[in-house]
Amino acid sequence: MSCVLRVSLGCWSPNAVATKLMSGENAAIIGAFIAGTAERTLPENVRDAAHRSLVDWMGVTVSGAQEQVAQAVLRYSGGEKIPTLGGGDPEKAALANGTAAHALDFDDTHILTDSHLSAVIWAALLALAKPETEAGTRLIRAFVAGYEVAAKLAGRRVGFSMQFRWFHPSGVLGHLASAAAVAAYEGLDATRAAQALALAATQAAGLRGTLGSMAKPVQVGRAAMNGIVSVRMAQAGIVTGLDILDCNGSFVRAFVQDGSAQLVSLRTDDLGSDWAVLRASFKPYACLHGIHPSIDAAREFVTDPEDIVAVRVYVAPGVKQVAKFSMPETPLQAKFSVEYCVALALTGYEVGAADFSATRLSDPRVRRLMELVETLPEEGRKMLDSAVEVNLIDGACSRRETTLSRGHPGNPMSWMELEAKFLSLVEPFLGSRTSPLLVLLRHFELPDAVRKIQILLEC
Amino acid sequence: MSCVLRVSLGCWSPNAVATKLMSGENAAIIGAFIAGTAERTLPENVRDAAHRSLVDWMGVTVSGAQEQVAQAVLRYSGGEKIPTLGGGDPEKAALANGTAAHALDFDDTHILTDSHLSAVIWAALLALAKPETEAGTRLIRAFVAGYEVAAKLAGRRVGFSMQFRWFHPSGVLGHLASAAAVAAYEGLDATRAAQALALAATQAAGLRGTLGSMAKPVQVGRAAMNGIVSVRMAQAGIVTGLDILDCNGSFVRAFVQDGSAQLVSLRTDDLGSDWAVLRASFKPYACLHGIHPSIDAAREFVTDPEDIVAVRVYVAPGVKQVAKFSMPETPLQAKFSVEYCVALALTGYEVGAADFSATRLSDPRVRRLMELVETLPEEGRKMLDSAVEVNLIDGACSRRETTLSRGHPGNPMSWMELEAKFLSLVEPFLGSRTSPLLVLLRHFELPDAVRKIQILLEC
Repeated sequence: MSCVLRVSLGCWSPNAVATKLMSGENAAIIGAFIAGTAERTLPENVRDAAHRSLVDWMGVTVSGAQEQVAQAVLRYSGGEKIPTLGGGDPEKAALANGTAAHALDFDDTHILTDSHLSAVIWAALLALAKPETEAGTRLIRAFVAGYEVAAKLAGRRVGFSMQFRWFHPSGVLGHLASAAAVAAYEGLDATRAAQALALAATQAAGLRGTLGSMAKPVQVGRAAMNGIVSVRMAQAGIVTGLDILDCNGSFVRAFVQDGSAQLVSLRTDDLGSDWAVLRASFKPYACLHGIHPSIDAAREFVTDPEDIVAVRVYVAPGVKQVAKFSMPETPLQAKFSVEYCVALALTGYEVGAADFSATRLSDPRVRRLMELVETLPEEGRKMLDSAVEVNLIDGACSRRETTLSRGHPGNPMSWMELEAKFLSLVEPFLGSRTSPLLVLLRHFELPDAVRKIQILLEC
Repeated sequence: MSCVLRVSLGCWSPNAVATKLMSGENAAIIGAFIAGTAERTLPENVRDAAHRSLVDWMGVTVSGAQEQVAQAVLRYSGGEKIPTLGGGDPEKAALANGTAAHALDFDDTHILTDSHLSAVIWAALLALAKPETEAGTRLIRAFVAGYEVAAKLAGRRVGFSMQFRWFHPSGVLGHLASAAAVAAYEGLDATRAAQALALAATQAAGLRGTLGSMAKPVQVGRAAMNGIVSVRMAQAGIVTGLDILDCNGSFVRAFVQDGSAQLVSLRTDDLGSDWAVLRASFKPYACLHGIHPSIDAAREFVTDPEDIVAVRVYVAPGVKQVAKFSMPETPLQAKFSVEYCVALALTGYEVGAADFSATRLSDPRVRRLMELVETLPEEGRKMLDSAVEVNLIDGACSRRETTLSRGHPGNPMSWMELEAKFLSLVEPFLGSRTSPLLVLLRHFELPDAVRKIQILLEC
């Protein structure tokens, strides 16, 4: 295939320069970037972002570990605890960590790729960590590198394109994120790191049809696991064609078959500048990110829910498509129900992890409201904005708008809010160990922090 | 989605009856079929087909185990030998078995699904076998069941559709075949068996871009491994929506995004009649199946290769697309080169495993002919027919046609030929153990055969 044809197919370069594409060039740039991880000093705001993500990850994982799906994965893997911080078989530990991290659907999201990159990456890295000797710095650097590679390679269109072509972006792109982070952590040279990424692409999997079921978080766990597998395979000398990761290579051609989205045609300086990890969105609510702006809007009403007679929720067309359970029958389905989540918010609930339970699902006040909600897709709306209109029994009608949902980097959750989320998730399970754990995570780069965290988790 | 729409989207029923589709109906039919495996007596020709496949599998695997990629997988997995017949970690053993089985690209093919189902299934089953107590009958039944489920579900279009949408059908559909066979072997009940298949679908992966590289056989190994993973996950209580396997469900929508092919809408009597395993094609040549008819035609010439001045090979358009290496640089690439394979045949070589080596690739007579070959796609040709025209130095031109390549069930390799292939592949490595191994494989259902085979392989 000629270079001219590749460019005409529209591979997107963030630098807006039509570059001549060498076969395997993306993989080579990625390999070199990963190989430079240990020598890279991260800016303060990037390190802070990594700490925010780590705290959030641990909170949703400690709580998610109690969910049925996480317990089932432990039965499969023969593991004893989640999260696992070092020890045992790292592949199986990464599977369990990643499943638990995504079990509540409450973990942070990289909106541009529609992917839960943090859940995958931390799951793999913590499974590999060697607490006795580990420096948190090394794990932070590897996390940031993995996030950067997957996010920059996928760019702004590939994740959503996969989602609407029935794949699960966190599963598929998560493979690349995990492999990149693990390759960075293990200190692979540029060639082997590039191979690890290409091998991860060959294993990438995950169906959107699992949404609302146990297999969705398992797919995140598999992505974490397979990043480790890919790195180990590359270390063992398995090689494949690096052109798989070209902007219009076999990977993206398979997952986006009409060619309407390509991977980014990377240039060296795309990686390690304007860091992707700064664009993680955190979830104040334990459900699909696309429902968040509707919840934000619904929470602004101070109306007695008994007085409500009709609710109209205006959402992006894609939200209506993914949030497919109008009348959810299980807590997992409820996480993908605009109707349920808005009814929760209008009833005054926090829409936190505890609100996705059989008890709440059978709350007659919530059920009454749920049946009143009409979800209306509206052209031009984005995933992060929404409007909610409510009709009251006295004939009044009022409307609330969200232009950017809470938790997005443009409307961020503060450290205080993230800590409050962590405490509410962890305290029921770890009790008095919760605060010491939070402090250690916030100061993850201190000597001994990793070892002390392991001890706290294993008490 | 309404039933009417589903039918209008054209889910194909071999009975040509537009049936009302219940959500998850395919999975339910498959689950019930798998659960009935132990009670099913197989017809004689079906058992014979399974034995043929087993003998062929063992031959290509014993030889394939010596290939670089198989040795690299052993380094990754920590295993000692391939093939593994019981013992060790079955997941890793299945990976190694499957990789070796496909390393030569010489294993049998189910043409209708464009998939190497046998390589995957035997890899998983033999990894799981418990030689001390094992009855070959149980393994044969599980093999046939797994083959039947994957082949019948995919029907006549899905495999090829995936191939031309940049996926590797053996990797993707292989996940279903392996899970079905392992579920049958483990005696899962109908519900769990259906879950295992759905979970396998969520893990299905494999890119066509790996063709000509080590990762292609690794993808076959991964499919074998993940069938075991899926069954174990189902046993551990992980569940997902069974509608994934509906004729137009999430699995096929993701892998064939334009909806031009669907899974078969199965009826109960589609499984276990007109058995799919009877349609396995065996390979006399160690390369892409689509090149076989051209080799057959080329072998008919009795011309002195020195006299040849031009060669035209007329192939199906798809063959030209997949056999993409006109000037292969490695033995793995050479397996996907019409030019190289036809040049081998015109030079008088067998086109067997030994002909894909650095030595043969640098044979000046082969190289000279390779450069004379022009490969011409021709509308209307199928994967199994071809014509070769040769111009001689004296001005003469002659032509040979193949209408159905040797090895296809319509033009089958005899048991004698299969045995000769086995002997030539295995003898260099197992020496005097080769014949006893062949006899035991041919009589796999005798008491003690499995245990004795294990002993022979481990000497």
